[in-house]
Amino acid sequence: MQALVLHDGKLTYQSDYPQPEPGPDEALIRVSLAGICSTDLELVKGYSGGFNGVLGHEFVGVVERVGSADGSVWAGRRVVGSINLGCGHCRVCLGEGPEHCLNRTTLGIHDRDGVFADYVTLPLTNLFAVPDNVADEEAVFTEPLAAAFRIREQIKLRPTSRIAVVGPGRLGLLTAQVLALAAGDIIVLGRRPESLELPAWLGLKTGAVDEQIDNSFDLVVEATGNDAGFAHSLRLVRPMGTLVLKSTFAGNANINLTKLVVDEINVVGSRCGPFAPALRALELSAQAGGNPPAGLGVQVRPMIDGEYPLRDGLAGFEHAARPGVRKILLRPN
Amino acid sequence: MQALVLHDGKLTYQSDYPQPEPGPDEALIRVSLAGICSTDLELVKGYSGGFNGVLGHEFVGVVERVGSADGSVWAGRRVVGSINLGCGHCRVCLGEGPEHCLNRTTLGIHDRDGVFADYVTLPLTNLFAVPDNVADEEAVFTEPLAAAFRIREQIKLRPTSRIAVVGPGRLGLLTAQVLALAAGDIIVLGRRPESLELPAWLGLKTGAVDEQIDNSFDLVVEATGNDAGFAHSLRLVRPMGTLVLKSTFAGNANINLTKLVVDEINVVGSRCGPFAPALRALELSAQAGGNPPAGLGVQVRPMIDGEYPLRDGLAGFEHAARPGVRKILLRPN
Repeated sequence: MQALVLHDGKLTYQSDYPQPEPGPDEALIRVSLAGICSTDLELVKGYSGGFNGVLGHEFVGVVERVGSADGSVWAGRRVVGSINLGCGHCRVCLGEGPEHCLNRTTLGIHDRDGVFADYVTLPLTNLFAVPDNVADEEAVFTEPLAAAFRIREQIKLRPTSRIAVVGPGRLGLLTAQVLALAAGDIIVLGRRPESLELPAWLGLKTGAVDEQIDNSFDLVVEATGNDAGFAHSLRLVRPMGTLVLKSTFAGNANINLTKLVVDEINVVGSRCGPFAPALRALELSAQAGGNPPAGLGVQVRPMIDGEYPLRDGLAGFEHAARPGVRKILLRPN
Repeated sequence: MQALVLHDGKLTYQSDYPQPEPGPDEALIRVSLAGICSTDLELVKGYSGGFNGVLGHEFVGVVERVGSADGSVWAGRRVVGSINLGCGHCRVCLGEGPEHCLNRTTLGIHDRDGVFADYVTLPLTNLFAVPDNVADEEAVFTEPLAAAFRIREQIKLRPTSRIAVVGPGRLGLLTAQVLALAAGDIIVLGRRPESLELPAWLGLKTGAVDEQIDNSFDLVVEATGNDAGFAHSLRLVRPMGTLVLKSTFAGNANINLTKLVVDEINVVGSRCGPFAPALRALELSAQAGGNPPAGLGVQVRPMIDGEYPLRDGLAGFEHAARPGVRKILLRPN
């Protein structure tokens, strides 16, 4: 089958990669559409200690067959899938799920072939059926949208919370839209005026991060993954406020920890999130006609900046790495 | 009066500093004993943007007189005092107290003369009476002990929480003793074997931080204020665990934020704390004979490494800055 394979830090397109075989409690999924994420770009640059295998973890696909008769209800269904696979029997897995299992594998990130391929396998317990009215071009955003919903699991948001999202990129815009639901008071901050055009069009308040002098936000979400973004975020959060780190950082960051101590800031790392509310948000937004304004739903299609056939995946990666580009999709067929 | 005065980054002893005059709701306090804190050492090095005035914020003293008849109940009483003075009418002051008022002054740290002097003034609302059975040499630890209790206000500690305190210095040992109360499961980690002698003598579990391979602590308290201590602390905390920053850092720190994101660590800055439980702990420990083992009380006297008359305060500062030295006290008379 076709696959984009990372090996010793080099990404190649291969047309003859072996097709995976589903285990007893697994599904073989034909990938319909996949998305390139910042983590993929970082992995190609060598982040995460050198992953080798098929890259990719954002996808929508169709279950081709399952490894055991028990799972036959899944055959033929359109699905998305959560990306962490725990050992299933440690205290973490049993108590909180696989996301922090110390023996976990992670789809296309750690010890498990990913979705930039014709086929992928996943345990049935990782699958979520996609509602009929959610198109593939929307469902492919389920995983990063779930990551945005993770913040709502971690932080007590009040209806009066004043929120800033620093970084109007892929994850920043999903986060801002999720936090804007239910009348959240949000502003999206960016450096370049053109980067703020889409959030403004979505109905989000926007501002230039350099010029933002209000530093009394209850919650600031750092979605840039760079030192300057972190410094701005720390500056904008009020004493005893919360700073959520939503992006991974390419290397070490140089930060002022004393402000953190003196102002008693709460910094919360935030990674993978729940798929169910993400799919509900996509379903409700599709019911609303597909383009509800910020606060009343989420729009993901306007974030698509390009689509490439999987065989041109390397060109897709180059495109995704350009400044200001949000989502690039890869289509196996 | 005598005073240790910081001016343009230079600390001097002055014998003729003007004695302060208490305002209507303030007390004039004769300082009996004061303690040198890491923050004092940092201020002398230029931290906190250049404070000018009488240094010092850890003290015990006796109220000499009050500015208005209303406060006469305080006259002659032995007191300690909280160090933040808010504006008293902003949302922060009215809701949560003066500690994070944006217009606050802070005793001996920001815009308010401190306690390395014969006399100091403080609002009556900042005063706490010292129980009779608590000696001056114990009461002088109330402020840093309160800072240790602050963690218990910020974090939900479970009786099963596994806790590491990195840094067996002044604040680390107070923190460890406070967290060990009520059967807390604590280990104190340090670099030099001799730095672990006192915590072991107090009845605390100890270990070499470099050799600590268990990295599954629910709560890690960083009490070193340096990059290496932060890196160790981050390494030791479990996924979704909590890292409390209890020490200020002299400059920017170079840290791995990605671990923070991937493991969804919660970092909590922690500063000033409640005086009442600190005084209760000192009172109960004195009732227990003054040297209860860790878990059953707090011992502060063993942390005293020297006492200097205020006129020799500069020598006291040199002593306090030596590696491994814990508490140096200054006595005006």
